Amino acid sequence: MLELYHHFLSTCSQKVRLVLAEKGLDYESHWIDLIQGEQHAPAYVKLNPNHVVPTLVHDGHVLIESTLINEYLDEVFAEPSLVPSDPLSRHAMRLWTKRVDSQVHPCAGVITFGIGTRPMILQRTPEEIELSVQAIPDPARREARRSVIEHGIKAPEMQGAIRTFVSMLDDMEEALAGRAFLVSDDFSLADACLLPYVLRLDHLAMRPLIEARLRVAAWFERIQRRDSYEVAVSEFVPEPLVQSFRRHGEEVFGEVQAMLAD
Amino acid sequence: MLELYHHFLSTCSQKVRLVLAEKGLDYESHWIDLIQGEQHAPAYVKLNPNHVVPTLVHDGHVLIESTLINEYLDEVFAEPSLVPSDPLSRHAMRLWTKRVDSQVHPCAGVITFGIGTRPMILQRTPEEIELSVQAIPDPARREARRSVIEHGIKAPEMQGAIRTFVSMLDDMEEALAGRAFLVSDDFSLADACLLPYVLRLDHLAMRPLIEARLRVAAWFERIQRRDSYEVAVSEFVPEPLVQSFRRHGEEVFGEVQAMLAD
Repeated sequence: MLELYHHFLSTCSQKVRLVLAEKGLDYESHWIDLIQGEQHAPAYVKLNPNHVVPTLVHDGHVLIESTLINEYLDEVFAEPSLVPSDPLSRHAMRLWTKRVDSQVHPCAGVITFGIGTRPMILQRTPEEIELSVQAIPDPARREARRSVIEHGIKAPEMQGAIRTFVSMLDDMEEALAGRAFLVSDDFSLADACLLPYVLRLDHLAMRPLIEARLRVAAWFERIQRRDSYEVAVSEFVPEPLVQSFRRHGEEVFGEVQAMLAD
Repeated sequence: MLELYHHFLSTCSQKVRLVLAEKGLDYESHWIDLIQGEQHAPAYVKLNPNHVVPTLVHDGHVLIESTLINEYLDEVFAEPSLVPSDPLSRHAMRLWTKRVDSQVHPCAGVITFGIGTRPMILQRTPEEIELSVQAIPDPARREARRSVIEHGIKAPEMQGAIRTFVSMLDDMEEALAGRAFLVSDDFSLADACLLPYVLRLDHLAMRPLIEARLRVAAWFERIQRRDSYEVAVSEFVPEPLVQSFRRHGEEVFGEVQAMLAD
């Protein structure tokens, strides 16, 4: 039996749900409400000591780290395969997933909390905000969170975060020359991994950055037409929250463009 | 043909050389002198846009990122296998290599440059130092480098870096209960990946931290007795440089212990 601890809008939850859906796998769903801080609850931290989602439990075995969960799912549930059979393409696929883990994902936290979630967080008391920041175990993530809640779009981390996303889009545009997906004409773990981050830009009203890159825009449409997208992503998108993300994104898009012009 | 661009003391070079040696693979060696800044030379950056070592070239195909190079080597040169066949153990192995990539490796830069290399770097002119810092493309690594060169053991990054290493040793001690290597009784990519970081602690005169953990100390000895260790690591260790690392490490070990007691 598969059990998934996840959240509707978390990028890492989306990428695991996409792989589960591509493979047609059912799972027992456990919501972890990140907005309420359920990822810090002692019972959950026993499963996932990093205080993050998702966590997969397979026949009682606990698996963490979304990139490694997806590799595991492809090994255990081999059909349809989402990992290229040739080692060079596999390496290319893993360069994408590693780049997301090491660079893109931390920057997604910066732009999501600094633009989309911040106005909601600022309605809490300073003590509540400080408690939620203090609960983040990783010191670098904790300090970045504190900074973007305090400074929003003007946080020192923001320009680097947005540039990291644009550089990701540029390299995707190059990789998609002559092929339908990032590594070949077949959908792979790399596509499942990148989709949530492109979607996050869309949710934060940065769609013009996507549309300026024709192949990325076509790839984004192509994935959204797959059955897995409906089951794993769009069904879970909370429209009122995303509308609020879009509104706050629109308010700062001029500043985003100014940062990119610098 | 295999070609390896590497440096004698770089942790990531050591872990790839260990895997090459375990598999008995010969390669054409290209030195990249990190101390002279050869990783920033335009010809090398074309191979490795991250300005780091190692880079492997296999029959003309360029492979970067040491963790992914090792996965590739195990796929292409399957015998002896260094990846467990069962998916749960594979996941456990990749949790170790991912932890090194995302947490331990950046901290290794902090302690190596802040303790071992700093006295040598401070003999350069301020302009030379600034140029070498500016050449680091990743902003977070660049700022950490600047900070430890300026402040040494008193850099704000130092306590977190040392604690990351101690937490790694503690979790290794737990993982090694009842088995010879980190994931099973067989040497795997996880062991090749962790060895250089334990060795770095030894080189920086922090051997008491290793010896306080009996299973880690025995694991460290066990790897040092393998044929691959001689070929891949000890043959390349520059004794005068390591003696200088040890001397500087001894000077600050009291402060390291004080940080851990805090």
